[in-house]
Amino acid sequence: MNNKVVIIGGVAAGPKVAAKLRRLDPEVEITIIEKGKFLSYAGCGLPYYISGEIKEYRELMETPIGVMRDPEFFENMKRIKVLNRTEAIRIDRENKRVEIKDLESGEVSSLPYDYLVLATGAKVSIPPISAVDLNHPGVTLSPTDLAHVYTLHGVEDAEAIRWTIKEKLARRAVIIGGGLIGMEMAESLVKSGLEITILEILPEILPILDEDMGILVRRYCQSEGINIRVGEGAQRLEGEGGVVKRVITDKGSYEADMVVIATGFKPNDDLARKAGLEVGERGGIKVDLFLRTSDPFIFAAGDCIEIENLVCGQPAYMPMGSLANKQGRVVAMNLAGRREAFRGALNSVIFKVFDYTVARSGLGVKQAQNLGYDVEYSLVPAPDRAHYFPGAKQVIIKLVADKRSGRVLGAQMIGKGEVTKSIYALATLLNYQGKVEDISNLDLPYAPPYASAIDNLCLAANVLRNKLEGDMVGISSQEVEKKRKRGEDFILLDVRTPREYQNIRIPGSVLIPLAELPARANELSPDKEIVTICAAGLRGYEASLILKSKGFQKVMVMDGGMATWPYEIER
Amino acid sequence: MNNKVVIIGGVAAGPKVAAKLRRLDPEVEITIIEKGKFLSYAGCGLPYYISGEIKEYRELMETPIGVMRDPEFFENMKRIKVLNRTEAIRIDRENKRVEIKDLESGEVSSLPYDYLVLATGAKVSIPPISAVDLNHPGVTLSPTDLAHVYTLHGVEDAEAIRWTIKEKLARRAVIIGGGLIGMEMAESLVKSGLEITILEILPEILPILDEDMGILVRRYCQSEGINIRVGEGAQRLEGEGGVVKRVITDKGSYEADMVVIATGFKPNDDLARKAGLEVGERGGIKVDLFLRTSDPFIFAAGDCIEIENLVCGQPAYMPMGSLANKQGRVVAMNLAGRREAFRGALNSVIFKVFDYTVARSGLGVKQAQNLGYDVEYSLVPAPDRAHYFPGAKQVIIKLVADKRSGRVLGAQMIGKGEVTKSIYALATLLNYQGKVEDISNLDLPYAPPYASAIDNLCLAANVLRNKLEGDMVGISSQEVEKKRKRGEDFILLDVRTPREYQNIRIPGSVLIPLAELPARANELSPDKEIVTICAAGLRGYEASLILKSKGFQKVMVMDGGMATWPYEIER
Repeated sequence: MNNKVVIIGGVAAGPKVAAKLRRLDPEVEITIIEKGKFLSYAGCGLPYYISGEIKEYRELMETPIGVMRDPEFFENMKRIKVLNRTEAIRIDRENKRVEIKDLESGEVSSLPYDYLVLATGAKVSIPPISAVDLNHPGVTLSPTDLAHVYTLHGVEDAEAIRWTIKEKLARRAVIIGGGLIGMEMAESLVKSGLEITILEILPEILPILDEDMGILVRRYCQSEGINIRVGEGAQRLEGEGGVVKRVITDKGSYEADMVVIATGFKPNDDLARKAGLEVGERGGIKVDLFLRTSDPFIFAAGDCIEIENLVCGQPAYMPMGSLANKQGRVVAMNLAGRREAFRGALNSVIFKVFDYTVARSGLGVKQAQNLGYDVEYSLVPAPDRAHYFPGAKQVIIKLVADKRSGRVLGAQMIGKGEVTKSIYALATLLNYQGKVEDISNLDLPYAPPYASAIDNLCLAANVLRNKLEGDMVGISSQEVEKKRKRGEDFILLDVRTPREYQNIRIPGSVLIPLAELPARANELSPDKEIVTICAAGLRGYEASLILKSKGFQKVMVMDGGMATWPYEIER
Repeated sequence: MNNKVVIIGGVAAGPKVAAKLRRLDPEVEITIIEKGKFLSYAGCGLPYYISGEIKEYRELMETPIGVMRDPEFFENMKRIKVLNRTEAIRIDRENKRVEIKDLESGEVSSLPYDYLVLATGAKVSIPPISAVDLNHPGVTLSPTDLAHVYTLHGVEDAEAIRWTIKEKLARRAVIIGGGLIGMEMAESLVKSGLEITILEILPEILPILDEDMGILVRRYCQSEGINIRVGEGAQRLEGEGGVVKRVITDKGSYEADMVVIATGFKPNDDLARKAGLEVGERGGIKVDLFLRTSDPFIFAAGDCIEIENLVCGQPAYMPMGSLANKQGRVVAMNLAGRREAFRGALNSVIFKVFDYTVARSGLGVKQAQNLGYDVEYSLVPAPDRAHYFPGAKQVIIKLVADKRSGRVLGAQMIGKGEVTKSIYALATLLNYQGKVEDISNLDLPYAPPYASAIDNLCLAANVLRNKLEGDMVGISSQEVEKKRKRGEDFILLDVRTPREYQNIRIPGSVLIPLAELPARANELSPDKEIVTICAAGLRGYEASLILKSKGFQKVMVMDGGMATWPYEIER
């Protein structure tokens, strides 16, 4: 083992490398260089600091026993040297030195290393939005030049947003970007008492989900009072007297006294590029299985690297704190002379938006199709525990598989119910390239407070198997809506009870309760396409089987039933 | 496909076979024979009916949309014939007929079958406990001959217990058996206002857990006001005037006006035995991979069969409603001419006792050792989500692995925090014979409301890897307690902060805070065995590394730290 390890970046991967390496090697000299003031903080907790659910930002930087992870902590508890407020400005690979700048004094110096670790993280990705101060219309501004226009990257951003709210300087906020951070911010700002508009340039929010799932989350958020505009991109910010006043899109104008730009992150690989290290096509430092860069004396970990999507083998960018920690451990192991691989990840994501949990792992339908998979999926709404158990809540599971091999490609899950258990099982299964039929027989533990006797993930797998085995033909609500819009001549056959039908139904649907279907199937024209609908899918499926046994050829079951219908209804 | 399928048993596996078979085959004649009045009910929900959390027992028999699953439901919705209050008394395999008895009229008749399915479930296993009515001391009674002595098997039992409580006929209850059902009943009866004593003949409650986990659950339940006596078996029940009055053990006598015998279940394989079908050594109908019995025209599923433990390949008995449903599906597939295997299960269990969740899957330490595995384990208390997130609660994870292969053998998890996610991931991993190192890099999704950046399951795996790789030597609290009891000369080195130490500590432990250890290690005798202790394990581990680097040879880390210490403490 060599003597000096220098780590650039002190938020997530960096401190993990340092702490684990210290445990593996009591002697090595470890130095962390961090541009910011704060170290080892939980960036993912910032939305909850803004909303006030977490009272003090120092809670995000404390150990579980309440010790602040500041330079003294690292020095005293771990014997790790920390230079914060210090920027690494250049890597001299030939002489194995890092040029650094003390951001307080401005002094430049250089540090020697035997091994260098790049944990430089991500940077905010801002689309081309123009900005103007109406009092100085001639001056070209960047959006964040206007006061109360923020991104959300570090503690300082969160502090500023919280201050703006606390000082009552904002009542109406526009969030630009309806991705994960945008939606978390929406919850956070609504809880802070602000009126929110979200602008998403894509046709649907949450591009990490398929659109049929995204629309359900959007409908839910809209029901919580958030104004969400999809297919509408911010083009210009207007301010007055240096303070933002409104956001102009291609379709309208939105008054705003705060704007949060949440249009995503990209790898902060500038230092690596300048040093001539290999970088991925869409950014991100290239690393091998052992997280070594193209320079054998330089490792990289965290939000600055490109990794492999384990499902499809493609290069991917997954800036997640959990992966940064795993990668940090791997780098430390390799630095200490052990041999540890980081194979890649699944793009597993979970987040909370109001009372909804949204989770995904692996590939979505469109993503899988673009990669050439022949895709089948199921969409199953079901309670998160025994339906009779107090507190049972619905979760909608979309399970995606490759038709040819039966291999599970991914899943998406949303709802008010408990989602983590299912996405944890699914992510684990993806790790082993599991098949849909594996899920059917997974021995997931069962008791009424925690699951149904037929677990909802298992149910989603069984429905998908019915499709894969040709017992069931599904049709998405989106396709049904398109048929309706085009005025196609088909039968929308609702097989629920009269009471359910009276309560809520799709306009134009006809009712034949399932129990009456065997006797009344002759009321239906055998030449027409029939789409069966029920509450969640089971009765629709049973109806399709009855119709098929009676010779009907063109029968499809609407995926998810009424529970996932996001379009027009009658009551 | 043949024409007539007769299913004996109408609670879980039986109705599942019937419903799935109907979907696969619209023509086959399906008949369910059920001894009881009620069909297709959620037996696992009964404790919650007794406690009143579920108001009406019919909720346990309804579909999610509130339709009662009675014989008419099966007839009308599924075209399945149900004979309830009907007992199957003999199988005539030669002529392929089942002799049945109408329990209301007493009439005996017989039904022909092409295929028969045995879903006869479990029966209560009652140990040899004598019973006496002090008013009639000469008469030999069985325990349940005394009024207010119950088992918990079906709806009728639950009804009777609930009635006894409602009529205020019981104030003090003794539960015989501290297994899963006994503990669920304890919660249920405490919620009903009763004073509870649990008698467990084994040295610790919950034999599905290792003793070091069982004792932690017991300590918790005791703190909730339950009197639990371990290593103490009920020997005699005494009644007066036909009503139970007390329970006599080898160590004492417990007044009781209600007794619940919860000493487990065994497969109800009587009918199969009488028909000459093969039965496992410890009971349970033997089935092949396709759930066919030794008679190719007879299948079996649910609590009456013996299955394979997928971790070790041994025959096992796992009476779980979730498995009954999976097996029902498999039988239906095979009956319909598809080919579907049921490979076995993991003995995955989860249940709730007050605010604790208890879960396990795979093998425990003792079980694995008995099977010849060379076992290592980790015991890790950690918060269920980001420790700074409001509502974070502790979960204790015990992870068990085979030393030679690094393969995960099982896990046990207890605590007030969210446990399902971790046990779901673990059970899925066991299904693929995953290794400990796989867990370290599982891409489980992360956000502060749902997990820590280093997930607690991942943390447990990392600790276990440290042990497997020889970086850490653990010692259980049980072993430490034995050393203390034996008066051994060793150092119990607490490395927490003075404040933590003053708050709670193990008598006889000495304090050197971790940060001071490098400078103060010379205060410790290098010849003595040292056991390091902290709050949960990390600092103890770091202390052991510091001591080792200073030449100390005999250093061990107490597994789980103070968080899992169940013995004497000083404050």
